[in-house]
Amino acid sequence: MAEPAELDVVAIGNALVDVLSHADDERVAKLGLVKGTMSLIDETRARELYEATGPGVEISGGSAANTIVGVASFGGQAQYVGKVRNDQLGEVFGHDLRSTGVRYDTPMAGAGPATGRCLIIVTPDAQRTMGTFLGASSGLGPGDIDGSLIARARIVYLEGYLFDPPAAQEAFRKAAALAHVAGRKVALTLSDPFCVDRHRAAFLDLVEGHVDILFANEAEICALYQIASFEAALEKARGHCEIAALTRSAKGSVLLGNGTMHVIEAQPVKNVVDTTGAGDLYAAGVLYGLCRGLDLPACGRLGSLAAAEVISHVGARPMVPLVSLTG
Amino acid sequence: MAEPAELDVVAIGNALVDVLSHADDERVAKLGLVKGTMSLIDETRARELYEATGPGVEISGGSAANTIVGVASFGGQAQYVGKVRNDQLGEVFGHDLRSTGVRYDTPMAGAGPATGRCLIIVTPDAQRTMGTFLGASSGLGPGDIDGSLIARARIVYLEGYLFDPPAAQEAFRKAAALAHVAGRKVALTLSDPFCVDRHRAAFLDLVEGHVDILFANEAEICALYQIASFEAALEKARGHCEIAALTRSAKGSVLLGNGTMHVIEAQPVKNVVDTTGAGDLYAAGVLYGLCRGLDLPACGRLGSLAAAEVISHVGARPMVPLVSLTG
Repeated sequence: MAEPAELDVVAIGNALVDVLSHADDERVAKLGLVKGTMSLIDETRARELYEATGPGVEISGGSAANTIVGVASFGGQAQYVGKVRNDQLGEVFGHDLRSTGVRYDTPMAGAGPATGRCLIIVTPDAQRTMGTFLGASSGLGPGDIDGSLIARARIVYLEGYLFDPPAAQEAFRKAAALAHVAGRKVALTLSDPFCVDRHRAAFLDLVEGHVDILFANEAEICALYQIASFEAALEKARGHCEIAALTRSAKGSVLLGNGTMHVIEAQPVKNVVDTTGAGDLYAAGVLYGLCRGLDLPACGRLGSLAAAEVISHVGARPMVPLVSLTG
Repeated sequence: MAEPAELDVVAIGNALVDVLSHADDERVAKLGLVKGTMSLIDETRARELYEATGPGVEISGGSAANTIVGVASFGGQAQYVGKVRNDQLGEVFGHDLRSTGVRYDTPMAGAGPATGRCLIIVTPDAQRTMGTFLGASSGLGPGDIDGSLIARARIVYLEGYLFDPPAAQEAFRKAAALAHVAGRKVALTLSDPFCVDRHRAAFLDLVEGHVDILFANEAEICALYQIASFEAALEKARGHCEIAALTRSAKGSVLLGNGTMHVIEAQPVKNVVDTTGAGDLYAAGVLYGLCRGLDLPACGRLGSLAAAEVISHVGARPMVPLVSLTG
């Protein structure tokens, strides 16, 4: 039996600052990007893309960082692990996390690549297309994972994007193993269908043997099992994880757990402005609900609530305390 | 008689990146700030304030820079002069200007203070309160003013904030003198009532002898003449400049020129989100109209149009091409 947890969630991810700009579909295609997905880019390509895009807005991002801010915004005890450089964007990243109440003390890199950034192009349909330069975030390694920290949190939450930088993948495995040793839960989001394609064998191994709570959207879960039908992929997922939370954009989500399937409606949104962060904030609601011992439908509703808030404005983090929306 | 101008407007100002966050009136007071105004702060105070504020959004700003982006957004030929450091925020500043079509080639400082920033706190009534760390922008000096550039533009536009850093004040005077030698017009915005208080004698001297087009709001023009009544201040201004454009927030603006006074209504706005940049964009519309040879009421209407666009969203620069609103 594990000790009572002091923290609700520790999230580990690529620490990125988002650079948001607007463009139409034609321009996205001309830039060689695949709409709705995330491509990894090197510094040269990041510079090219940046020069080719319009005026930007810089906002702290990173998938798991957005999620952990959501957990804190619901009132959860939250900590983040991820690597930035000791540069201006690195300071921005740390400030924004800490000012939302998230604990964050991963040491900044004193040398090497700059703080990672994600160039996000929002198209008129509110979809986002991303080019990520991992930068300093690829410096995250097993040495940054503190076993006592992992042991103090109910859930360790890992983003699939961490599989891209090799040392982070090791950090990821270490964190999962430590969590289980301490009797904690391991949650994973698959992050992106192309990310799943890049690391399918490793993800399958994890999902089948090491993940308690799985987050994925339709494209990601189908990519994982190489199955075209969402229903068939659901069947597969059902056997592997204690809980699977599968999002379907405007169609809401499906939560599987204890042999039961719960269909959760999406929260209606008047004006969808920017879908960046929808999945990240959905995960925040579900994780927070699980930490508070809520049943799965209630967890799913918190997820829908948080996702609805974040897609109704520009940027991937809540603009109001999520706890104020729970009534 | 001057040569035909190749450029419409050259704007000179403090090159700043805005860091926008939200807080209530009580918090603004607790931080020792005077709501609705701009305070100059040093690096230590900037750090303190930043640590005390919530998550931020970084957007390129700077009063005259916002104006020149507005001129370009209307379709004008525009250039900017202002100083950043060769750091990440400096790159952001340059990218955002150039990507809107503004020419910008002031050399980046290779040493000295970081790129200047303006911490902007938006209160629930959409008012903004600013703390500015001038940083690298105070390195702007007369050496950065290129006489042939000034001679090529119909109007040189100067922000009053330039009077704060001493070398910039010199650059300011040099630019005004060069413009007049070349038969061009000099426009000035008073920027802020406290800025006027700090430099009243110098401003009065300029307005009385060297400024052709004056921009100010009620508080600023009253501060300049140390008169409590807007009407009395109007009378004073009438004698000094060829054109005076005086803004009155929701009450619109008053344009004086050729011995005639034109009252311009504000453009109605459904939802005022953030008033940052309202004056800057009003100036953009008026300057653009003057360059196109429009009469004063038409210039004022372009100003109102641009101001209405910018206060309807977060950030001090237009989110749509202003030319698309002119129908």
